[in-house]
Amino acid sequence: MNAPHPHLAARQRLYDEMSPLNLTPLWEVLHSLVPPQPATPCVPALWKYDEVRPFLMRAGEAITAEEAVRRVLILENPALRGQSAVTQSLYAGLQLILPGEVAPSHRHTQSALRFIVEGSGAYTAVDGERATMHPGDFIITPSWTWHDHGNDADVPVVWLDGLDIPIIRFFDAGFAQNDVSKSQQVTRAEGTSMARYGHNMAPVRHDAPFGATSPIFSYPYERSREALERLERDAPVDDWDGVKLRYLNPLTGGSPMPTMATFMQRLPAGFSGKPWRQTDGAVYSVVEGEGEVVIERQGVATRFAFAPRDHFVVPSWHTARFSSKQGCVLFSYSDRPVHQALGIHQEERLS
Amino acid sequence: MNAPHPHLAARQRLYDEMSPLNLTPLWEVLHSLVPPQPATPCVPALWKYDEVRPFLMRAGEAITAEEAVRRVLILENPALRGQSAVTQSLYAGLQLILPGEVAPSHRHTQSALRFIVEGSGAYTAVDGERATMHPGDFIITPSWTWHDHGNDADVPVVWLDGLDIPIIRFFDAGFAQNDVSKSQQVTRAEGTSMARYGHNMAPVRHDAPFGATSPIFSYPYERSREALERLERDAPVDDWDGVKLRYLNPLTGGSPMPTMATFMQRLPAGFSGKPWRQTDGAVYSVVEGEGEVVIERQGVATRFAFAPRDHFVVPSWHTARFSSKQGCVLFSYSDRPVHQALGIHQEERLS
Amino acid sequence: MNAPHPHLAARQRLYDEMSPLNLTPLWEVLHSLVPPQPATPCVPALWKYDEVRPFLMRAGEAITAEEAVRRVLILENPALRGQSAVTQSLYAGLQLILPGEVAPSHRHTQSALRFIVEGSGAYTAVDGERATMHPGDFIITPSWTWHDHGNDADVPVVWLDGLDIPIIRFFDAGFAQNDVSKSQQVTRAEGTSMARYGHNMAPVRHDAPFGATSPIFSYPYERSREALERLERDAPVDDWDGVKLRYLNPLTGGSPMPTMATFMQRLPAGFSGKPWRQTDGAVYSVVEGEGEVVIERQGVATRFAFAPRDHFVVPSWHTARFSSKQGCVLFSYSDRPVHQALGIHQEERLS
Amino acid sequence: MNAPHPHLAARQRLYDEMSPLNLTPLWEVLHSLVPPQPATPCVPALWKYDEVRPFLMRAGEAITAEEAVRRVLILENPALRGQSAVTQSLYAGLQLILPGEVAPSHRHTQSALRFIVEGSGAYTAVDGERATMHPGDFIITPSWTWHDHGNDADVPVVWLDGLDIPIIRFFDAGFAQNDVSKSQQVTRAEGTSMARYGHNMAPVRHDAPFGATSPIFSYPYERSREALERLERDAPVDDWDGVKLRYLNPLTGGSPMPTMATFMQRLPAGFSGKPWRQTDGAVYSVVEGEGEVVIERQGVATRFAFAPRDHFVVPSWHTARFSSKQGCVLFSYSDRPVHQALGIHQEERLS
Repeated sequence: MNAPHPHLAARQRLYDEMSPLNLTPLWEVLHSLVPPQPATPCVPALWKYDEVRPFLMRAGEAITAEEAVRRVLILENPALRGQSAVTQSLYAGLQLILPGEVAPSHRHTQSALRFIVEGSGAYTAVDGERATMHPGDFIITPSWTWHDHGNDADVPVVWLDGLDIPIIRFFDAGFAQNDVSKSQQVTRAEGTSMARYGHNMAPVRHDAPFGATSPIFSYPYERSREALERLERDAPVDDWDGVKLRYLNPLTGGSPMPTMATFMQRLPAGFSGKPWRQTDGAVYSVVEGEGEVVIERQGVATRFAFAPRDHFVVPSWHTARFSSKQGCVLFSYSDRPVHQALGIHQEERLS
Repeated sequence: MNAPHPHLAARQRLYDEMSPLNLTPLWEVLHSLVPPQPATPCVPALWKYDEVRPFLMRAGEAITAEEAVRRVLILENPALRGQSAVTQSLYAGLQLILPGEVAPSHRHTQSALRFIVEGSGAYTAVDGERATMHPGDFIITPSWTWHDHGNDADVPVVWLDGLDIPIIRFFDAGFAQNDVSKSQQVTRAEGTSMARYGHNMAPVRHDAPFGATSPIFSYPYERSREALERLERDAPVDDWDGVKLRYLNPLTGGSPMPTMATFMQRLPAGFSGKPWRQTDGAVYSVVEGEGEVVIERQGVATRFAFAPRDHFVVPSWHTARFSSKQGCVLFSYSDRPVHQALGIHQEERLS
Repeated sequence: MNAPHPHLAARQRLYDEMSPLNLTPLWEVLHSLVPPQPATPCVPALWKYDEVRPFLMRAGEAITAEEAVRRVLILENPALRGQSAVTQSLYAGLQLILPGEVAPSHRHTQSALRFIVEGSGAYTAVDGERATMHPGDFIITPSWTWHDHGNDADVPVVWLDGLDIPIIRFFDAGFAQNDVSKSQQVTRAEGTSMARYGHNMAPVRHDAPFGATSPIFSYPYERSREALERLERDAPVDDWDGVKLRYLNPLTGGSPMPTMATFMQRLPAGFSGKPWRQTDGAVYSVVEGEGEVVIERQGVATRFAFAPRDHFVVPSWHTARFSSKQGCVLFSYSDRPVHQALGIHQEERLS
Repeated sequence: MNAPHPHLAARQRLYDEMSPLNLTPLWEVLHSLVPPQPATPCVPALWKYDEVRPFLMRAGEAITAEEAVRRVLILENPALRGQSAVTQSLYAGLQLILPGEVAPSHRHTQSALRFIVEGSGAYTAVDGERATMHPGDFIITPSWTWHDHGNDADVPVVWLDGLDIPIIRFFDAGFAQNDVSKSQQVTRAEGTSMARYGHNMAPVRHDAPFGATSPIFSYPYERSREALERLERDAPVDDWDGVKLRYLNPLTGGSPMPTMATFMQRLPAGFSGKPWRQTDGAVYSVVEGEGEVVIERQGVATRFAFAPRDHFVVPSWHTARFSSKQGCVLFSYSDRPVHQALGIHQEERLS
């Protein structure tokens, strides 16, 4: 074996000698720091509900909601095991709450979304108002608001939790507090927030109770579905997205939370979509119907067939293409508002 | 009679001599140019619907909608006769369209609101989509969009027109065009705009079709009323306003039009409100119920008892106080967004 | 003479009978209310400084600054005599302050700009800080801030006052107060505001002392001129505007005041500009050099030759075309930010 | 040794069995995911320039600027070795360019700031315009703009590079391209951008050439220093910050780049500051003078004495306290704009 070239050896000596000063040469890593295009470590992944549900129910036996504080199975990206992350920046989990249980009140900097997957009749209480859950409802816990969950019904209720936990951790900006009481006091009738802000009107004098987060904290599926069906019937269907709507904060027109955007889309029966990619990785929850998605990057394609209550992730800058024979409805969320605020959002629609 | 003081005479000579150069002394008018508080020339006024309606019907006989282009009786402020203005900055009129008639398609810089007063089944078409009218609905014609009206029903339909005509005239910024055809072509099913933007969601890719104006151009009374009733039951009632909501542009959270804000409020039965005043003069349309308003300025009070379909105006910086024995619903509009954009909005709640 | 057509007579009866109810028919005035394009009543006008100055000096003898409060000759648009307006929405005047005089402290809702025309060494005090005046400086009095003027120098000082008086009057939103003392107390060294906000930096904790108005209240000519000269030399000259910069509020990037934009432009020697028009009427003050402007509307052209310290007005939607043999510098202001906030700004560059 | 409690064993079995499905229990990690307050892994660190400089010069011998593309020694946080990060979200490095060298043209999504540490006469070219470097100047390379560096002087030039590399990597949104030519073509005279945007004015028609990034890409030290000195003399000195200004984007009033804020502050002679903490970790470059900072967290204090050209980092939510006997000037940067855009910025001033 030959000795390394003398100047390489000199460089290595330099590296070794300056290392104790916490100095390191950029030129050895420049390419990976500034890649020609996004090179996420994340991979596509699918969680079939019929495989996940038994574990959820076993978790229901293994620990109470109260002991767990939140009884959640985290959906970890296979390439990010141990990081509690579904993409580098997002967290996803499935939470179970059994009849009679309570998940105690606390608050934290992290914003949370709940998308109801199975069961009706549980509730989330936010800032003194309860929202009763039904499958397909999208519920928000704004940053730094007290919240607790409970189940007054007689069936288990499961929902998808989407949080910005990795973002808050990355920026070292998380605070949290536990409430003195297990369940917060109810101070407003259910539906008050929707009446105040959900009818394309707003109180003259109660603007923005949750700052940059939407004052509507429950968007019922009934209304979202009605909009999608109407548009499927009456308006052109997009070749890439089918009929896709974003949830909005009616006080700003922006995303419901500063860190996460949420979407609901309907792929009509027989839909065979064109491929697209975007910098924001997205997590999907299948609401109704079946379909499939082909996710591709650098020549490697993954095909997921999905059914109701399944969950999957499309990582950043992976090409995705949807199709559905019978038609289906998909909920999804991503960190797009962060990409947009930082001026780094890119998307591409291919043909 | 004595001669004027010599220096007054000198001043007058100065004024006279410089007048041909279009010069005039500020100090003679400073106080009126910069008054200690708003000194609007407008006065409070009431239009009782049972007095106005016969004239509307006679107008229906005197001229066709098509010949008139818009068959409207302008509500002129008694202190601004001849200016087609209900306040210095706002226009109000009552428009009648008879069964089978059409008010031909045109467009203009001026923004318009329509608030339906009597009759169902007429329509406004805006940018290719029709909105069927029902009493209490609030409909927008965004600036510079083609619009026409028609009545396919078998009853006369009357609505309040609120426009920013004086504002556009004051700023010398008005453009207008007549359409080549009497009625514009319908290109979208009725309800498409509401489905796209009215459910606290928005299309991922069709933002802001009307610029700064709300993409929802019809806000049905059914939904506004439901919100008011809910809040009257479940939330605290404001001592000045009762339950008062502002209509919003869901893409911005701001007013539906850049020049005009719109409001709907419910005074509960037995409401006896506290007095308030604001710089934006407001026009009211009584939707349901009866009540009274006392409007006061510099010790002179005017008392209006109002009933459904009556209209009245509360001028700038006049103190107003509402009361209602049986409860009532009021629609109103003002130029508040302009005051806010210019940083000159003031309001005062008195006790 | 024949009788009028019976239905015209019927209409007239209708008009007459409903008039006491403050009702009037739209169709008789629709065309003038909604004109095909802006039809301002304003006309172009020029005030030659050598004609105006003698009257200013006579005003200096006829009344003291203190008695006058503000010793100003208003530049009235010839078509708007008696309205204290140079366009429908703007006020312009030339203010004189003699050595030793003080114009006492007051404040008002109206925003004011001062553009120094003749003489150095007078001052404006705003919110506790003085700004010494030099020809070409642009100074702001933000809405509702205490301000007074004085002349500690030994020469008369004259400046252009530009205010939004007609706007505040139109919207009925003006408030005013006189200070208890003639001159406000100085609480900050001159130049503090410029040091805080004028170097493309801002204090971490003193944002927006004047709300939507620029925290820099004096923009010295020295710096504006330097920028113009640099750009004239190094960057392409615009065929319509020469080199034209807008003053900005460094905390927003918008206009220095919510109601008025200000501009300074340099026409290079030999400039012969192309024609343009815009909805915002503009008032010009000639800083240096000579030139001419041709202003045209509906086939009627007006030609103004201008020299330093002259003032002229280009009304809304009049076509204007500049030229200058020797080169010149022009300051101007208009109500463009209002047009932009209301979504009604239009401009056209002709070739 | 005892067997674990049966239900713990059952839980472990559950964890083991669901792990292949990429499921993991939240309740085992909840506390660390949602900490009571920020628990950054970063530690305070100091790089003394007299220790670092010899390695920089050796790097100058070991590799050419062209071969290195960028000859930079990365300042790595001691607790984040191998991650090319000075805080979790920020990158810092010291770049050397020797007389006659060129660092070739490329562009990338990442935003960069350059703060000149040693030597005059090198340049950065951005979008066709060069900026000559002097110590204390702050220069920007906006996201996705072509840029190259060169040294036409006869002394080595060293600057601090601050980039958002970890942020772009975390959000998987980085793109990069190399230019076809080594140095981009110069298309504008040096100083054109400053003339256009740096005098509290802006071109009427060239707004926002770099989107959300400041159109001024060079902020000379001469002007920043003048502002600081003026304020130290004439305005109150803050007990925590001394005199501290933030650089701003004159078209928005916000930070110069969407991802990074920059600051310059002067601690007067004898300054002994009060302690503060904030969620955004910050990197400091000492411009002039000497001083010390005490950085503390959970009872552990680190004391750094600093001199000109030293660099140090204050991590998130560490308490910091400055003092300076002779007075000093500090430049710093952080990711505060991201914290603010996401609604997660917190700061605390202690006494």
